[in-house]
Amino acid sequence: MSLEPLFKPRSIAIVGASRNREKVGNVIFRNVTSSFRGKVYPVNDKAETIEGVKAYRSLREIQDQPDLAIIAVPRDFVLNVLEDAGASGVKGAIVITSGFREVGGEGVRLEAQLVSKAKSLGIRFLGPNTMGLLTPDYNGTFAFADVRRGDIALVVQSGGIGAYMLNWAQRSRIGISYLVSLGNQADVKEYEIIEYLSRDPETRAIFVYIEGVSDGKSFLEVLPEATSRKPVVFIKGGATSQSAEAVMTHTGSLAGSYDVFKTAIRTVGGMFVENLKDFLNLSKLISSSEPIREEVLIITNSGGHGVLTLDAIVRAGLSQIQIPERLKVQLSKILPPTSLPKNPLDLSGDAGRERYLNALKVVGDLDCTKLVVVESLPFLSCTEVAKAMLSFKGKGIVGVLMGYDEDSASRILESASIPAFNFPEEAVSAIKHLVSRPTPRRKIRVSQPISSAMEIVKGKKVLSDIDSLKLMELYGIRTPRWGVAQDQEDAQRIADSIGYPVVMKISTDEPVHKTELKGVFMNVEANQVREVYSQLSKLSGRVMIQEQLSGLEVFVGGILDPLFGHTVLTGPGGIYVEVLRNVSYGLSPVYEDEAFQMLKESKLHDMLTVRKRGYDEGSLVRTISTVSRLIVDLNVAQLDINPLIVNERGSFAVDVRVVLNR
Amino acid sequence: MSLEPLFKPRSIAIVGASRNREKVGNVIFRNVTSSFRGKVYPVNDKAETIEGVKAYRSLREIQDQPDLAIIAVPRDFVLNVLEDAGASGVKGAIVITSGFREVGGEGVRLEAQLVSKAKSLGIRFLGPNTMGLLTPDYNGTFAFADVRRGDIALVVQSGGIGAYMLNWAQRSRIGISYLVSLGNQADVKEYEIIEYLSRDPETRAIFVYIEGVSDGKSFLEVLPEATSRKPVVFIKGGATSQSAEAVMTHTGSLAGSYDVFKTAIRTVGGMFVENLKDFLNLSKLISSSEPIREEVLIITNSGGHGVLTLDAIVRAGLSQIQIPERLKVQLSKILPPTSLPKNPLDLSGDAGRERYLNALKVVGDLDCTKLVVVESLPFLSCTEVAKAMLSFKGKGIVGVLMGYDEDSASRILESASIPAFNFPEEAVSAIKHLVSRPTPRRKIRVSQPISSAMEIVKGKKVLSDIDSLKLMELYGIRTPRWGVAQDQEDAQRIADSIGYPVVMKISTDEPVHKTELKGVFMNVEANQVREVYSQLSKLSGRVMIQEQLSGLEVFVGGILDPLFGHTVLTGPGGIYVEVLRNVSYGLSPVYEDEAFQMLKESKLHDMLTVRKRGYDEGSLVRTISTVSRLIVDLNVAQLDINPLIVNERGSFAVDVRVVLNR
Repeated sequence: MSLEPLFKPRSIAIVGASRNREKVGNVIFRNVTSSFRGKVYPVNDKAETIEGVKAYRSLREIQDQPDLAIIAVPRDFVLNVLEDAGASGVKGAIVITSGFREVGGEGVRLEAQLVSKAKSLGIRFLGPNTMGLLTPDYNGTFAFADVRRGDIALVVQSGGIGAYMLNWAQRSRIGISYLVSLGNQADVKEYEIIEYLSRDPETRAIFVYIEGVSDGKSFLEVLPEATSRKPVVFIKGGATSQSAEAVMTHTGSLAGSYDVFKTAIRTVGGMFVENLKDFLNLSKLISSSEPIREEVLIITNSGGHGVLTLDAIVRAGLSQIQIPERLKVQLSKILPPTSLPKNPLDLSGDAGRERYLNALKVVGDLDCTKLVVVESLPFLSCTEVAKAMLSFKGKGIVGVLMGYDEDSASRILESASIPAFNFPEEAVSAIKHLVSRPTPRRKIRVSQPISSAMEIVKGKKVLSDIDSLKLMELYGIRTPRWGVAQDQEDAQRIADSIGYPVVMKISTDEPVHKTELKGVFMNVEANQVREVYSQLSKLSGRVMIQEQLSGLEVFVGGILDPLFGHTVLTGPGGIYVEVLRNVSYGLSPVYEDEAFQMLKESKLHDMLTVRKRGYDEGSLVRTISTVSRLIVDLNVAQLDINPLIVNERGSFAVDVRVVLNR
Repeated sequence: MSLEPLFKPRSIAIVGASRNREKVGNVIFRNVTSSFRGKVYPVNDKAETIEGVKAYRSLREIQDQPDLAIIAVPRDFVLNVLEDAGASGVKGAIVITSGFREVGGEGVRLEAQLVSKAKSLGIRFLGPNTMGLLTPDYNGTFAFADVRRGDIALVVQSGGIGAYMLNWAQRSRIGISYLVSLGNQADVKEYEIIEYLSRDPETRAIFVYIEGVSDGKSFLEVLPEATSRKPVVFIKGGATSQSAEAVMTHTGSLAGSYDVFKTAIRTVGGMFVENLKDFLNLSKLISSSEPIREEVLIITNSGGHGVLTLDAIVRAGLSQIQIPERLKVQLSKILPPTSLPKNPLDLSGDAGRERYLNALKVVGDLDCTKLVVVESLPFLSCTEVAKAMLSFKGKGIVGVLMGYDEDSASRILESASIPAFNFPEEAVSAIKHLVSRPTPRRKIRVSQPISSAMEIVKGKKVLSDIDSLKLMELYGIRTPRWGVAQDQEDAQRIADSIGYPVVMKISTDEPVHKTELKGVFMNVEANQVREVYSQLSKLSGRVMIQEQLSGLEVFVGGILDPLFGHTVLTGPGGIYVEVLRNVSYGLSPVYEDEAFQMLKESKLHDMLTVRKRGYDEGSLVRTISTVSRLIVDLNVAQLDINPLIVNERGSFAVDVRVVLNR
């Protein structure tokens, strides 16, 4: 069913519209009437009029069929109001009322009833527990009415954050097209909203504050197309385990692993920021029309500010553009004799508005971001420079205004849609985010299990080490030569055929920490095999003998994320798994270019290629990609290859553990 | 000679005082006369009066002996003015004029003349190329005159940064005691200024923007005492190699390695921040009198804001205090039924001023930082909460004010010296810095070289691998058993006596990359020694045979930093040196507790102790400490132990290279 009745209603009823100006139901009524051009019907079972408008006792009394009902009645009446709405031909609803799933117990039951009732009536609804919806046509929220209109859409899973962002946008002169307060997402989900807004011609970019997604599978399916239409920026509340707990009680969402979440956002082409300040600053940059490049030229009147700005640029991994010689000649004519025409371009403390403008004209055609950093001095105010920037007709300018008149100077730039910041590091961080926008990938999880692999896992929850190794081989992942010995004779025969030295270790059905049990012997030579066998056989009835390989120890794992499904992990293996925690993630299926990117992120790429040692990186890329499909095919809950040894000859799974999702 | 004539003059002459209000010499004259209670003499060789005050043609014409001369004449006249100053009994000078060392060439020569002239005349001077000096007694700068007075001192190596910080302090209602613009530090150095201010009763904390220090040795000697008197906070411009280049042309300072710089600041007990925003925010926190604890309680009216604030706290490594049960009971009475008395304490969107105040009263005695996060809503403004915070009589409160009236609410808190921020992450970052203030350490570099070690290095620049190993042994650092073979027979004999397997490698006088030359064989068994010897002898006349050890490969190095002298480095060794770059630094001499701290920072501590493998961490601590003394004793320019193998038995230097400072 379409979301049109929510976003483009022709008439709106406000149920629970109140005469008391302190009440939510009154604030919403006033916000709607002051913004909406269509017909508005207040519904209140006790009042004759609301704010001078004739009120109705119930939705059923309204002769017209309102498209949308905004419901702000006490919790226990919501279900009845929904019933009335269905009877009156209402097609969309916004349930402001709280006290549902987020409070647990009875609330959970009532929310389920809402959902099934709405479904049977053919009504789509936002909420419950929402602050409402603001569109270019109407303000159906109880937030401040005074909102600057523009083309940035906000989607928030916290009413408080939504209200705050409206405020912030107002103060920063950023225009808003929509504010969608998601509430509990009992019916309408965040991915539907994002999808709708991505098609909306009045929206340039979508900013999303989210704590957990409602349905990872749909999210992964819908988002890639949305993000390819326009920028979608995410911030996640509940980044850490402690605050994930706060999230649970806050909106009742399931907050998944932060790292997997970040990976999912990147995979679908979303931009991801870590804190509110970055989120807001990025909106400044995106809402302007300036073309932003990764190469930056700093233009300043203070050497110290130039130095600190360059520090920020280098730290963020942006580039410092070199000024071409021909422009240097021109700049020299503008600069005082003691200043050099270089980047940062220090116009010197005695620079005035003219010198800024002349410098901008010289560098105007350079294909780079011109970061104009100005420190207000008795000789030059930020406002003067802001005016110079306005006179400049070139593109790609960003202001960093620092000093007593920074606020008024910011207003001048913002009125011309030139982004303005007050600290170099904030501008730089926003630029970095914008130029690093990822490419969306669609993840199609086609399961094509190998039948012999299905045989191995059939009826099992946990695979033995032997079965796990066999599974690897069936999927084309190499293992060191290995065998399992039943007695000393057998052990000697197997070891002889493998070649020395060998590794001997206990073989088990359940995952155990073999090293801690002293169940692993390395560097076993021919004359030691029997003795080692007899020691190991005291610990376990089965002894495995393996070819001893040297190379880099890598960890490759798989998990079943509760939100985003099967996910592959990789990083330095052995003890480094626990110590370094340089782990990178990829959602199944991981394509080979993505696997290579994972190696770069986890530093494995550097480890494999350092000192030109020629380790076979391609084999690791293929292994990661294979594991990403294997865990889907067989519905694996957890998989550990640790270590996978990578050397000149390829990648070899030495120890493997598989737990199935049963 | 004392700095008193600069900081506490009884009379001031301004040489180059100008009638033109656009000129620096005029601005300074006005700033001094409007602030200083003592006698002020304008000196101008053409004017009769300046701003209505009788002017003198030269310092020599003044009958009185001014204590201080502020000099703002063209560069080529400065030397003569200094001469006049000496003749008139002036004891201190501030040389505003620029065009000296910072422009190179002739400027360098002129600056050297200034220094020797001042020395012979017994005059201490600040600058040249300085924006001037602001004290509680007078404003001898050409910055804005309107400065809020208080107890924060600013010391800056960039006039632009100084002017900006004055502005910022003004807007943030932070009171300033001193602003010292260091200029080129031809005479008076930053450590002298910091030392002076650390004894000044009117200064509570010192904030220093620095690009490079003038004299690392004196800095290390003087600072520990200064930082133990009051907080000294540093920010360094030129953090990165690219901007270090900008620094060179900016003030002509030598920007040392950023990592060593940070280590030096921490060693002397200074606080170090990475960007300007953190620097300024920390000044907000320090200039208030609130006791700040590492344990934080979040009190908010928005669940989303609570979640994001907790994310910031966990990321910064601060602690989240648990609310005691007895207080939970009391809080439950204040909170609406759907809110739980936990941390973050969500007072809910309908909270008013009263609820904030009541909550603060309940938690008031908890020994923690109370972070009051407020989002302005139609029902509650930030200003209301700021007033509630003022009524609260308890300690340790910090405001995070977010919304339409955040600025006016900030003013209310700041007027009561309660710190106010606009983003949770900014408050959290400032708190983290404040609670992590390091303890100053005094570094006394007593050189006590061992005479036999002196013998080895005598007359050499680069030590051979053999001499390097011997040096280790003389200093009590263990090495694997080793020997150097002259022929096959010899090799077999040595290897037999060491025990198998052994490592065989080429032995050289100069440092070479033995592995890349294929000059290293591991796992050599008895029957392979002769063959390996014959291969290696083709590469080098000398072959070294070593006991093969297993354990963790560690890197321990030493450098001679141009600013701060001998410095020890450590981190994961072998290939990980280049890949992980988890390097930690310590200034010589490194005491054992510091060495242990270095192991924690570089993750070596985790690597040594993971899975309880019982590696001898103490031996590594002792090795680091020993190396830190050895490099001083022998005046080493570069020392590399890579790898040092650490295992259950101790630490063993396997490959060592030493280059002396000649």
